[in-house]
Amino acid sequence: MLNYERYKRVPVVNYPERQWPCREIKKAPIWCSVDLRDGNQALIEPMVVEEKIEMFNLLVKLGFKEIEVGFPAASQIEFDFLRQLVERKLIPDDVVIQVLVQCREHLIKRTFEALEGVKKSIVHIYNSTSTLQRDVVFRKEMDEIKEIAVQGTQWVKQYMQDFKGEVVLEYSPESFTGTELEFALDICTAVQDTWEATPEKKIIFNLPSTVEMTTPNVYADQIEWMNSRFKNRDSIILSVHPHNDRGTGIAATELALLAGADRVEGTLLGNGERTGNVDILTVAYNMFSQGINPELHLENIREIVDVYERCTKMEVEPRHPYAGKLVFTAFSGSHQDAINKGMQAMHERKNPFWEVPYLPIDPSDIGRQYEPIVRINSQSGKGGVAFVMDTFYGFKLPKGMHKEFADVIQAISEKQGEVAPEQILEEFKSCYTERKEPIHFRKSQITEAEEDVEFSTLAKVRYTDHGVEKVFEGVGNGPIDAVQKGLEKELGIEIRVLDYYEHALTSGSGAQAASYIHLLDVKTGKATYGVGISSNITRASIRGIFSAVNRLFY
Amino acid sequence: MLNYERYKRVPVVNYPERQWPCREIKKAPIWCSVDLRDGNQALIEPMVVEEKIEMFNLLVKLGFKEIEVGFPAASQIEFDFLRQLVERKLIPDDVVIQVLVQCREHLIKRTFEALEGVKKSIVHIYNSTSTLQRDVVFRKEMDEIKEIAVQGTQWVKQYMQDFKGEVVLEYSPESFTGTELEFALDICTAVQDTWEATPEKKIIFNLPSTVEMTTPNVYADQIEWMNSRFKNRDSIILSVHPHNDRGTGIAATELALLAGADRVEGTLLGNGERTGNVDILTVAYNMFSQGINPELHLENIREIVDVYERCTKMEVEPRHPYAGKLVFTAFSGSHQDAINKGMQAMHERKNPFWEVPYLPIDPSDIGRQYEPIVRINSQSGKGGVAFVMDTFYGFKLPKGMHKEFADVIQAISEKQGEVAPEQILEEFKSCYTERKEPIHFRKSQITEAEEDVEFSTLAKVRYTDHGVEKVFEGVGNGPIDAVQKGLEKELGIEIRVLDYYEHALTSGSGAQAASYIHLLDVKTGKATYGVGISSNITRASIRGIFSAVNRLFY
Repeated sequence: MLNYERYKRVPVVNYPERQWPCREIKKAPIWCSVDLRDGNQALIEPMVVEEKIEMFNLLVKLGFKEIEVGFPAASQIEFDFLRQLVERKLIPDDVVIQVLVQCREHLIKRTFEALEGVKKSIVHIYNSTSTLQRDVVFRKEMDEIKEIAVQGTQWVKQYMQDFKGEVVLEYSPESFTGTELEFALDICTAVQDTWEATPEKKIIFNLPSTVEMTTPNVYADQIEWMNSRFKNRDSIILSVHPHNDRGTGIAATELALLAGADRVEGTLLGNGERTGNVDILTVAYNMFSQGINPELHLENIREIVDVYERCTKMEVEPRHPYAGKLVFTAFSGSHQDAINKGMQAMHERKNPFWEVPYLPIDPSDIGRQYEPIVRINSQSGKGGVAFVMDTFYGFKLPKGMHKEFADVIQAISEKQGEVAPEQILEEFKSCYTERKEPIHFRKSQITEAEEDVEFSTLAKVRYTDHGVEKVFEGVGNGPIDAVQKGLEKELGIEIRVLDYYEHALTSGSGAQAASYIHLLDVKTGKATYGVGISSNITRASIRGIFSAVNRLFY
Repeated sequence: MLNYERYKRVPVVNYPERQWPCREIKKAPIWCSVDLRDGNQALIEPMVVEEKIEMFNLLVKLGFKEIEVGFPAASQIEFDFLRQLVERKLIPDDVVIQVLVQCREHLIKRTFEALEGVKKSIVHIYNSTSTLQRDVVFRKEMDEIKEIAVQGTQWVKQYMQDFKGEVVLEYSPESFTGTELEFALDICTAVQDTWEATPEKKIIFNLPSTVEMTTPNVYADQIEWMNSRFKNRDSIILSVHPHNDRGTGIAATELALLAGADRVEGTLLGNGERTGNVDILTVAYNMFSQGINPELHLENIREIVDVYERCTKMEVEPRHPYAGKLVFTAFSGSHQDAINKGMQAMHERKNPFWEVPYLPIDPSDIGRQYEPIVRINSQSGKGGVAFVMDTFYGFKLPKGMHKEFADVIQAISEKQGEVAPEQILEEFKSCYTERKEPIHFRKSQITEAEEDVEFSTLAKVRYTDHGVEKVFEGVGNGPIDAVQKGLEKELGIEIRVLDYYEHALTSGSGAQAASYIHLLDVKTGKATYGVGISSNITRASIRGIFSAVNRLFY
């Protein structure tokens, strides 16, 4: 029996005047990466200095302009890393370094020592403000908790007096989502007054969902409540720092942006304590997919994943939005078919917009490939097999042939599970293009009469039958007809060409062509396709006929 | 340059009268598992029959009353699986079997063949209704698309006439999120009329976010828009079937529940095409964490993960809410410290509610353990080390000792990365309790004067110094004082006991005690802790003094 009665409902905000559900996201926020701090802290193997530098360089390359690099006063490693960044001159002029520190004097002093030589930095102070933490962790009253924040702000002001670089203050009422809103506003206002923030000297208020406690609409209500009540709103940059305990961190971030947030702190692919921080990549790609410039250089997700996996030793899970191995894979046959048709329509209409069912974005726009889009299993149906043959190998199977060949693959997949494209091609060869037993076409000589009369074509065909060399002749209204007639007489069969279709496999005059012949056995009513390949379109068709005859009669 | 201009903004709903943001989730929906259909279809290795049966049995055990088992008309494997369920009598009386089928007569006929002998089933018909699919895939007008759904409904009515079991109809306007709302409502109403749904013969309308296209509030608007306009709402069960392309599937589900959905289709741990279906476990555990009965037996997440990983050959990623390996792990020192204090307060106050910072639920409520909560790395700080010593080994280090010992562990973790609890214990022994060189306490004889006067205690102590057996005596106001005085004289040192703390390690009279001595070297001002263990509290303290002297002077 699940012990649900041990848990209290987290209160929601009574805020019917909310405006955020009527709004749309229209531009990217200020992004702040906390990969090197929050992300790194929660790794089983934290990054070593060289890995941190690789990650830092990636973040810079992706276009992050604010990067939290550590808590230098708390850890010698993080202190040393910041010094390396400074001494190896790795910080571009337009990148602001952010450092975390508690509201304690000796830690703030040490933080400024770590920042020596940094041109522009964000000093990020915090203290925990939630009802629960005040009660059980700090055992302090609201006023005492507020005093910690105010005192911290004063110490930052004090130590920055002798500091040469530019300093922006960020204050986080940590565990904001468990804090009474009135108190969160009160403490922020006290810090704002102490800092003497102005529109020219903005303060960053970062409202974290340190632990995600409610449905994301409640977080949005909390953010809008604060946003609409801040004093001198134009002196404030409103930042959010969502976690993902309930699996709704992305949503909480997006709804917070609707609610007025200017800035998002998060990590690449969502590293962080427990279920992680919000994944900035997904939020940014979500904007991208809606035609909004995410203001990050995210053209190559594979490179990002490579660096991420190498530095963090974490693996990106296969269903992770945009980045996972399976997310551009369609297993379902009807999905594959629709993708196929959608791409075709887009191409035919020269549609400048990406509009393909089941593929929210073009994988190639973010450095992914079409290749793995289709995997064929026992449930994927005929569209998928045809799609693989076309996309991977250029064979545009006529529609009537889709089911015939898909049945072959489905029978295999029901036995073995997934069928790789390579195996699909092998089956295609053994069923069609290399079906050369017992009759195997060798050579042909086609003689066309000069005038365009009936039965103007004479085909002389050399072939082997069970390995024995033979020859026959046929006359007809063109090479296919002539070969058909000759074969009928030679083998004592009655056949009819129901359909014929041929296309170039590659471009250029020496290109190979594939010819598809749909052939009926008149006596039994059975029909099948045959396929032939040749750089000579006539030979390709004759091979197609032989392929079909072998399938029909042997 | 990211090619964001290729993408159009998906339109939102102009629906200012929305009520869902004012509501709270108060009860569990009807859950329908689609693990054996949507989930299975998207596996690299689809489940074989025995794996499907294991999964089915798990779903039944978890309390699912509606289970979609396949698309029996489309796949022989799924047909055979359903027959197995029937013939092996694996379907409990209170479980309804759901089967998917397109609106095509021969498929509907075949579906009823597959259902032969099933007492109660949901026949789930669908067709794709979105603007894009109508245009590029089906090339049909709205009326033609509507006719497909109506015709499908008629066929179900027709074939159920000779069918013995009870049949409920479910209709999905597939790709609902890309469908004009007016058209979705129109097509649903036509199906409803054709089916002649009544409050006694309800119809299920399932509105999928086949592809997640917008922020989740827009999905909620769409659901509420439909919900408030349906004809004869009491004849309808409103179902949602969210996917996760934008990483907001959980949020979309929760907001859809606020918007009036009665039923949720999803999978365990979110298997499914691309980024997957919504993870029913997370939605259910989210309810659980808010004191709501999720109406599923989710007491043992480890068992669920075991069966899931075995059947699907997929791995649960370490940060997956509730189920991932790392989600009850606190790396941060301040988090560990707060967890420690929160648990202590809960215990002391006999709080019937779970209220611990950074741990939204008690891991043991869902079959997880405390063990892996704390991992110590270079950034985890003093609280974590103390927590490990207490939780794992029962040593309640006095507060003043936390930093001293944490510094030892931090130095190690800065070199090697994460430090396991076992190694922390080993370090504790080598630094403190087994610090026996050069002076090693062997035996003591304590003689107390009968009267309580000053210097009433005589201690006679045998010890080895660099391996040489020695003995000293001391007189003082108790054993610690007497041993201290004796040692000062014997070794020519001047020391002071700054603090003393002792506790039982286990219960019972033969239990061992741990004694912590904070000792000052008066000449240098240096101080350190020493720790001794013994079943005799006096000997434990003397060992603590020896431990501290060895640490201070050698």
